[in-house]
Amino acid sequence: MIKPDDGLLNTIIAVDAMGGDFAPDEIVLGAARATIETSINTILVGDKSRITAILDKADHNPHQVEIIHTDQLILNSDEPKRIIHKKPRASMLIAAQLCGYGQADGMVSAGNTGAYILTTVKSIPRIKGIHKTAIATVYPTRNEQGRRDPFALLLDIGANIHCSAEDLVQFAIMGKIYASDIKGVKDPTVALLNIGKEAYKGGDMLSQAYEMLKMQNNLNFIGNIEGNEILKGLADVVVTEGYVGNIVMKTVEGIAETLSGLGRDAFKRRFIWMLGLLALSSGIKQLKQVTDYSAYGGAPLLGFQKIVIKAHGRSRAKAITNAIKVAAKSYRDDVCGTMTREIAQYRKQFLSKN
Amino acid sequence: MIKPDDGLLNTIIAVDAMGGDFAPDEIVLGAARATIETSINTILVGDKSRITAILDKADHNPHQVEIIHTDQLILNSDEPKRIIHKKPRASMLIAAQLCGYGQADGMVSAGNTGAYILTTVKSIPRIKGIHKTAIATVYPTRNEQGRRDPFALLLDIGANIHCSAEDLVQFAIMGKIYASDIKGVKDPTVALLNIGKEAYKGGDMLSQAYEMLKMQNNLNFIGNIEGNEILKGLADVVVTEGYVGNIVMKTVEGIAETLSGLGRDAFKRRFIWMLGLLALSSGIKQLKQVTDYSAYGGAPLLGFQKIVIKAHGRSRAKAITNAIKVAAKSYRDDVCGTMTREIAQYRKQFLSKN
Repeated sequence: MIKPDDGLLNTIIAVDAMGGDFAPDEIVLGAARATIETSINTILVGDKSRITAILDKADHNPHQVEIIHTDQLILNSDEPKRIIHKKPRASMLIAAQLCGYGQADGMVSAGNTGAYILTTVKSIPRIKGIHKTAIATVYPTRNEQGRRDPFALLLDIGANIHCSAEDLVQFAIMGKIYASDIKGVKDPTVALLNIGKEAYKGGDMLSQAYEMLKMQNNLNFIGNIEGNEILKGLADVVVTEGYVGNIVMKTVEGIAETLSGLGRDAFKRRFIWMLGLLALSSGIKQLKQVTDYSAYGGAPLLGFQKIVIKAHGRSRAKAITNAIKVAAKSYRDDVCGTMTREIAQYRKQFLSKN
Repeated sequence: MIKPDDGLLNTIIAVDAMGGDFAPDEIVLGAARATIETSINTILVGDKSRITAILDKADHNPHQVEIIHTDQLILNSDEPKRIIHKKPRASMLIAAQLCGYGQADGMVSAGNTGAYILTTVKSIPRIKGIHKTAIATVYPTRNEQGRRDPFALLLDIGANIHCSAEDLVQFAIMGKIYASDIKGVKDPTVALLNIGKEAYKGGDMLSQAYEMLKMQNNLNFIGNIEGNEILKGLADVVVTEGYVGNIVMKTVEGIAETLSGLGRDAFKRRFIWMLGLLALSSGIKQLKQVTDYSAYGGAPLLGFQKIVIKAHGRSRAKAITNAIKVAAKSYRDDVCGTMTREIAQYRKQFLSKN
């Protein structure tokens, strides 16, 4: 089959076939789909006989699929810190090593987040000058900037607990480049999550970060935003410490759950409510998606020399296909190369001033 | 008129008549209502001629109302730090001084929060041993503990930015005593907001706070909870740093706004949505109330020797009446006295170990 040139012909994405609540079935089906829809090459890492059995029944392009066998996999009950010694051939770890050794351009896993952070940190070189990698979540907003797509990026959501002002500047630069690529926006707006608008708010670290962000030449920094503005979409990229980002992201998840709860209670109480819920069900679904980043290709782990995508644990095939496409597209568009150049430029500017 | 004995006959609550978006009208009407419904004595601080004009038209008990005149009031545009020197006779400051000098048992204001924190800190003595005062927000939950009322307390939401592990323990003790009184629950559950369940999560300060909370004899500490559990109501009291609490509270506010936004967009798109919204409007209102603490008596500032209640800036008369009742009830039930005793006990225990 001849495919239209999508620029992905030479792209290789390693896929942890064994990570996620519905692995390996949904992971393998998602990768199979990606080989039909694009010219991306995939390396599936996991139990070969199970992977082959799933592929046999699925529509896929065999020229674009390679399998690397391992019988070790990481469970959610595994303690992240002990995995590398206990399971040196875990599928997630091998996929990360493929990136580290240059045999893959990026990777996708829906497995244990803590283990993912550790295995990638151990296996894939960081971009020169980057102190800390960060996880970013992609979430839909009210799009008050009127962008073509309403997504925004919030980082860090938990790769680290605390960080320095300089780390936040690095998160801003990486987030900006990633957002620019996935959103197709030239100069994404960047904001700092804080407890007030004024530059001096939030204590020493945040006010220092504010000043440093303001000084960046290549950054469209719009200042502080508060919690109630996160979902407005005034900024394409929102930077914060992992500790706060994690709690905020989970609070939003909790509200989606609460809404479903309200719905169920109401269902019992009033018929008019039931009608309303039926009519609104697509709207409530829309709200739930606010927290379901699997629909948007997954959460990138930024700061590595390769593209690393964390798909949601509950990812089904479609989400995995999306995650593989996002990884391949980011590679094609040289997202990591751009980060390397801009971080080098930032370091030069920063070091000449300090 | 002879009223049933509500135990509030000797209670005096100072009310900043000039603070809030609808002051003085709604504030004075709220206080007037409180004198009808209870035996609470109120001192209204503000522009006497305006207050008198409003009272003249409102049902109230004149024996329970005193007016202290001042023509200075704090605006939202006033910089909190400069208020005490610039406006030494501001209505909010005088009300706080009435508490500080023992002429009132508690106070209520719907004015500028930053100014409120500063004026009360300057005017009202702290409970002995308390390092930092905290603002607590009262919010409704999914009530997964099956309490008679579904409210929970989150503190600190912004009186401070950062704090120590010991501060969090003090917040927990104060929050527990306040929650016990307003909820009528004997042994309220207390949780620490964190990024994971395990005791070691969240860095040094939070893991130290975890250990210290676990060691308290008189505290029903249930461990860490994550962002998605805040609204479940597993804990009656949730403690966190002001920085995080403020961002979380405002994120919840933002989601309520987003929901209204979804509604408006939908209205334009589909008629079935419109029907759904109409049917659900009371439910959406219910969600909005999650963030409208005026409906639950306002947010207490804890740590003072007197009861200090911050009513929402948009408070109408009913919210002010509620805030005055909550303040008076807390005084009647000796909430500050209980805090003083439990903090002394905690300090004794703490100092003997350190």
